[in-house]
Amino acid sequence: MRLKDFEASSLRHRQDRLEVLDQTALPDQEIWVECNHPEQMEACIKSLQIRGAPMIAFGACFVLAKMATKGAERAELEVWLHRLKQARPTAVNLERALNRMKAKLSRPIEFVAEAVAIFEEDRDLCESMSTAGAELIEENDQILTHCNTGGLATAGRGTALGVIHKAFSQDKNIHVYVDETRPLLQGARLTTWELSKAKILYTLITDSMAGFLMKQKKVDKIFVGADRIAMNGDTANKIGTYSLAVLAKAHDIPFYVVAPRTTLDPQLESGDLIPIEERRAEEVLGLYMPGKPLHEWSTKGSKVYNPAFDITPAALITGWVFDTGVLSQKEVSQGVLKKTA
Amino acid sequence: MRLKDFEASSLRHRQDRLEVLDQTALPDQEIWVECNHPEQMEACIKSLQIRGAPMIAFGACFVLAKMATKGAERAELEVWLHRLKQARPTAVNLERALNRMKAKLSRPIEFVAEAVAIFEEDRDLCESMSTAGAELIEENDQILTHCNTGGLATAGRGTALGVIHKAFSQDKNIHVYVDETRPLLQGARLTTWELSKAKILYTLITDSMAGFLMKQKKVDKIFVGADRIAMNGDTANKIGTYSLAVLAKAHDIPFYVVAPRTTLDPQLESGDLIPIEERRAEEVLGLYMPGKPLHEWSTKGSKVYNPAFDITPAALITGWVFDTGVLSQKEVSQGVLKKTA
Repeated sequence: MRLKDFEASSLRHRQDRLEVLDQTALPDQEIWVECNHPEQMEACIKSLQIRGAPMIAFGACFVLAKMATKGAERAELEVWLHRLKQARPTAVNLERALNRMKAKLSRPIEFVAEAVAIFEEDRDLCESMSTAGAELIEENDQILTHCNTGGLATAGRGTALGVIHKAFSQDKNIHVYVDETRPLLQGARLTTWELSKAKILYTLITDSMAGFLMKQKKVDKIFVGADRIAMNGDTANKIGTYSLAVLAKAHDIPFYVVAPRTTLDPQLESGDLIPIEERRAEEVLGLYMPGKPLHEWSTKGSKVYNPAFDITPAALITGWVFDTGVLSQKEVSQGVLKKTA
Repeated sequence: MRLKDFEASSLRHRQDRLEVLDQTALPDQEIWVECNHPEQMEACIKSLQIRGAPMIAFGACFVLAKMATKGAERAELEVWLHRLKQARPTAVNLERALNRMKAKLSRPIEFVAEAVAIFEEDRDLCESMSTAGAELIEENDQILTHCNTGGLATAGRGTALGVIHKAFSQDKNIHVYVDETRPLLQGARLTTWELSKAKILYTLITDSMAGFLMKQKKVDKIFVGADRIAMNGDTANKIGTYSLAVLAKAHDIPFYVVAPRTTLDPQLESGDLIPIEERRAEEVLGLYMPGKPLHEWSTKGSKVYNPAFDITPAALITGWVFDTGVLSQKEVSQGVLKKTA
C-alpha cells in the first residue's frame, strides 16, 4: 500500500516523503520540511509552519494515511487522530476531516483513499468558490483582504484569495489592498508572496490603515476567509476581521466571507460558542516566528492579550461565497444554513 | 546670554548641551543625542528620534534659542526657523510655536525667553488637561489608548496619557489597553515604557484587536491625542485613530481627544484640508527605525501605502479635553472652537 504522489502550493508527497512548505520562512526562503511522522506534523501545525484552516486538515489526514501505509496499527492511528484534532482548536475543518478518517479506521486502503479524497475535494471546492465569488468582482474593483487565504492555505487556488485570483484570470482589471495582519503578518509575508507570483497588482498596508482607506472611498469590496461558521452565519476568522466588518458596514462597503461548506459547524447555533484560541505573548511583544529568535520591541514584562481569531456577527456580512454558490445575508438570516447543513 | 538648564522626559539642557532622548532606541536603551545645531534637530525630527506634536515644537524652538545664545545672526535664525517648520507637515504645534519665535527675532534675549516660555506653558497645559480629563475617568475603568501621548511627547505629563496618569495618581483603579500602533510601534515601544515606569497596569494588543475587545465590553473609554484640530472639531491624529473612532461609535463607547488649545488650527474650517504626511515604504515593509538596519518581512518589491495620520470627523468624537476644560460634541458642533480660537 502506497500513498500516491501529489504537489500543492504548500504540501506535497514525493519519493516517499510527505513534505510541508515552511510558511514561517516565507517570503525569504522556500524550505520544505519532512512530516512523515505525526509528531512532526503536530509540531508544524502548532508552529504555523503549515497553516490555513483547510491545509492543516490535509496535513493531519495525510500524515495518518502515511502511517497507515507503513503498517501502523489501528490503536496507534486512533490515538494520533485524536491528538491531531487538538492541534488547533478554532478551525472546524480539521475536526471534520479527521472524523471522516475515523470512519475508515478499520479498512486501511479506504483510510488512505479518504485522505486523498478530502484533499481532491478541496481542490474542486476552491474552483467552485472562486467561480461563484468572481462574479461579484467588477472591472476596476479595489479589493481589501486580510490574512492569507490562497493556495498556501488550501489544496487549490484558495478561498478569498482564490476569488481574487479567478477574477484576475478572467482579465478583470483589479487592485488588491493587503492588510499586513499582525501579529503573525500572514498578509505581509504570504499574501503578498502569492499575489506577486500571480502578477496581481497589490498595495500593502498596516491593519490600522484599512478604515482610513474606506473613508477615502478606495475600497469597493472586502473578501475574507473563515475558520468556522455557525448556523446563524456568525463567522470566526483571523483577528481583525471583526473590526474590518464594522468599518465596512459604517462605509457601506460589501463584505464577503469565502469558505467551503466544510467550514460550517452544524453543532453551533451562533458564534458566541466558537472557542477562541489565545496564542503566546511573544507574538505581540515583537516579531515572533516559532523556532527563530524573538525580535522583541516592547517593554520587558508587558502583559499581552493575543486572541488568534474573532467572531463577526452575520449581520455585518453581505454574503457568504460557498462552493455551492453565494448566500445573501437575508437567506442566511432565514435559516438556510441550518436547513442545508 | 545663556539658555537655562532644564530636564523633561525626552528633552534636556545641561552642561551647555541641548539633548534629545532617542525615542527610536526605547525601550531597550536610553540614549541622549546632542542637538546643539539645527541640522541635528531637523534630522532628529525627521527620524522620529524626537517625536510627539508638542515635543518637536520645543526641540525646534530650543535649538533656535541655543543658536541665538551662541550669537547666530537674525538672517541665519530666520532661514532655520523656516526650514524647521517644514520638518513635519501635519502637526500644527510646530508651526505655531515657530511663529511665536519669529515675532521675537529682533530681540535675542526675548527670543531665548520665548522658547522657555513655550515649553513651560506646555507643562502647565498638560497639568490642566490631565486634571480636566481625569474627571472623566471612573473607578475600575478600562481605557484604550493609541500611539504615545505621554511625557515623551510633551513638556509635562502628556495629553491622553497624562489624563490616564492623573487618574492613576488620584488612586483610581484603572487598567489600560495599549494599541501597539503600527507601523512605528509607538504604543508597544513608548507607551508601555511610560506606563511600566509609572506602575500603571496595562495590556498590550495589536491594532487589529481593539474592535474585538470593544465587542467583548472590555473597553469603557478611549483617550487619544491630536496633531491638528480644525475649527469644526475634525481631528488629525496617528493613523488608526479614525478606525478606533468608528469602532467606538458602533459600540457606544465614549471617545475623547486630549490636546492643548495650541493644537487648534484657526485657518482650517474642516479636517478635509489637513495635509497628511505619507512616510517611507520601509516602515510598512517591516520593522524600520531610522538609522538602523531594516528588518524586512514582506515580499520584495511590494508597493506600500503609508499615511502617518488620519482624520477623525468631529461627529465621532464624544469630547475634546483641552487645557481650558472639556468641550462636548454639541458645543463644538455649535461653533464654540471658532468663537474662542
